[in-house]
Amino acid sequence: MATIKDIANRLGVSISTVSKGLNGASDISDELRQTVLDTAVEMGYSTKRSRKEENRKLCVFVENMNYDATDEFGYNVVLGFRQNAFRYHWNVDVLPITPAFQEENKYDTFLLKEGYSGAFLMGFTLRDAWMTSLQTSIMPTVLLDNFIANNPNVCYVGTDSFEGIHMAVRHLFSLGHKNIGFLNGPLYSKVSDDRQNAFESSMRSFNLPVTEASSAHSYYSPEAAKHHVSNFLANGITAIICGSDLIAKGVIEECQRQNYRVPEDISVVGFDDAPIATTFTPPLTTIRQEHNELGRCAYVSLSSLINHIPISKMLMRPKLIERSSTAFCNGTVKKKDVT
Amino acid sequence: MATIKDIANRLGVSISTVSKGLNGASDISDELRQTVLDTAVEMGYSTKRSRKEENRKLCVFVENMNYDATDEFGYNVVLGFRQNAFRYHWNVDVLPITPAFQEENKYDTFLLKEGYSGAFLMGFTLRDAWMTSLQTSIMPTVLLDNFIANNPNVCYVGTDSFEGIHMAVRHLFSLGHKNIGFLNGPLYSKVSDDRQNAFESSMRSFNLPVTEASSAHSYYSPEAAKHHVSNFLANGITAIICGSDLIAKGVIEECQRQNYRVPEDISVVGFDDAPIATTFTPPLTTIRQEHNELGRCAYVSLSSLINHIPISKMLMRPKLIERSSTAFCNGTVKKKDVT
Repeated sequence: MATIKDIANRLGVSISTVSKGLNGASDISDELRQTVLDTAVEMGYSTKRSRKEENRKLCVFVENMNYDATDEFGYNVVLGFRQNAFRYHWNVDVLPITPAFQEENKYDTFLLKEGYSGAFLMGFTLRDAWMTSLQTSIMPTVLLDNFIANNPNVCYVGTDSFEGIHMAVRHLFSLGHKNIGFLNGPLYSKVSDDRQNAFESSMRSFNLPVTEASSAHSYYSPEAAKHHVSNFLANGITAIICGSDLIAKGVIEECQRQNYRVPEDISVVGFDDAPIATTFTPPLTTIRQEHNELGRCAYVSLSSLINHIPISKMLMRPKLIERSSTAFCNGTVKKKDVT
Repeated sequence: MATIKDIANRLGVSISTVSKGLNGASDISDELRQTVLDTAVEMGYSTKRSRKEENRKLCVFVENMNYDATDEFGYNVVLGFRQNAFRYHWNVDVLPITPAFQEENKYDTFLLKEGYSGAFLMGFTLRDAWMTSLQTSIMPTVLLDNFIANNPNVCYVGTDSFEGIHMAVRHLFSLGHKNIGFLNGPLYSKVSDDRQNAFESSMRSFNLPVTEASSAHSYYSPEAAKHHVSNFLANGITAIICGSDLIAKGVIEECQRQNYRVPEDISVVGFDDAPIATTFTPPLTTIRQEHNELGRCAYVSLSSLINHIPISKMLMRPKLIERSSTAFCNGTVKKKDVT
């Protein structure tokens, strides 16, 4: 576990400054206190006060998503949640969850038994057993990218899918692309449904064609691309919007394997702006989600639900990050000359 | 201005307890401190600390809406905003605004000149001059019931229109009503557009007819009802959903003036659950918005924008409040016998 000295060294401030930040003393600025607290969480420090308040507990449940390594989407979402929770003296457990575990443990019962006041769920699909429980759950619960109708104990936090996909379509349209494909995330997900609707309505708003061949569902992994990329290329698509950066990675690699150049022949746009997006060849143009802030908003929503403020949705603005995987449309797609 | 003693008397606690609540002492409970702070704001108390911090200022701009009297929708929204802002040592000015004022004063310039760090706008329509300015504004701004696309400095706070209208339609459907009318709020408003779409999709989800005669736009006043009620009745409508409780008041009175009984002949549902809704004859069945909490959420969003967390939307759950203005459908509408 990190010590006060570790935090002081990392920030280049004195031990007494760190101590003031951790204990809420009023003679340091709000900004510095925030930095001290955020760094303490990131380094795994826990105050005596938070160790004492063991019955103030929140849980983050994660499925289908990695969050251990700093370059993963989930890492910063979890970190943002923990940083905000720490400031208000909550202990946070992060538990990876399987479908089998959900079948064995009723959602509300598990939370009550373990003494959690509320939970934040990441990476679940609408088909998960716990998603059914959430329709009638009495436990304050925040979902990343999923929505439960009519239950005032459950809130949806995410990035505005409509604006995000519209930004991607508009960007490609401005580069002269007309035949645009969309490789969406998985079925049975609120966010996939929203993005699908957004893609179709955005394409229509630019008078661009939407056919059955324009889009497909896949899953959040580079391996998802192989089959679909061939279909897109066979249909003359010159640009592909992807449901995540990982999908985009697979799309770029599959295009290149088939001797199409990115971006000269095919433009590719991701979604997330995960840290890995800059490491692709070429670096990925993508729709940024504010990961750390998503986690912070999840905490704010959960805290509101616990205080009986029935927040239903909290959405954040996406942002187009232009890198090198998109370029002006060449007209007809042609394979690069194989030398 | 209220004194500490006034607050102590109102709450039935000692002066030292109030003092501890106001000064953040740690030996009273979080809950009691919150009650002390909320009551202080409601009674118009300001601490020395907030008087000193004169350069931490937020503004609430109000148009087309009353907020002075405790029985008005706007009153509790403004109060909730001020209560949350007070806790974080912000001074809040509440300014009623006219279209002429907006023409004379550029939005960003006015805020900068007056030293406001951000603003909360209530009651504006999409046709207001400042709404155009907000498309490119750099000032953190939260809108009640209106949405500006693509500007990460502006956030929309409101109640989930889709769920609210769907609750009203489902309630009337469960009472046997099939021919349902919707007297919406004004044109050029995000929330009116959303509710219109919600009404049409909800009616279709119950296989109920939607025609041109099923709905109309009006304005948030009892006077809006007269003309439209006659049209609805002429089209055999047996239940009317209204865009606000004030509209519903006019609808009930106009039905009664034309010798239709509410709810025996015509069921009426309001929207808001303003304090007056209980005083109607009969008391109004309505879709509740959490007024105070809307104001609190507006503060949370504004504070997030000021801290560069680009929240786009924050929506709250509505709630069906069943009173006496709705009843089982009689079949064909018939006027009551005039005695």
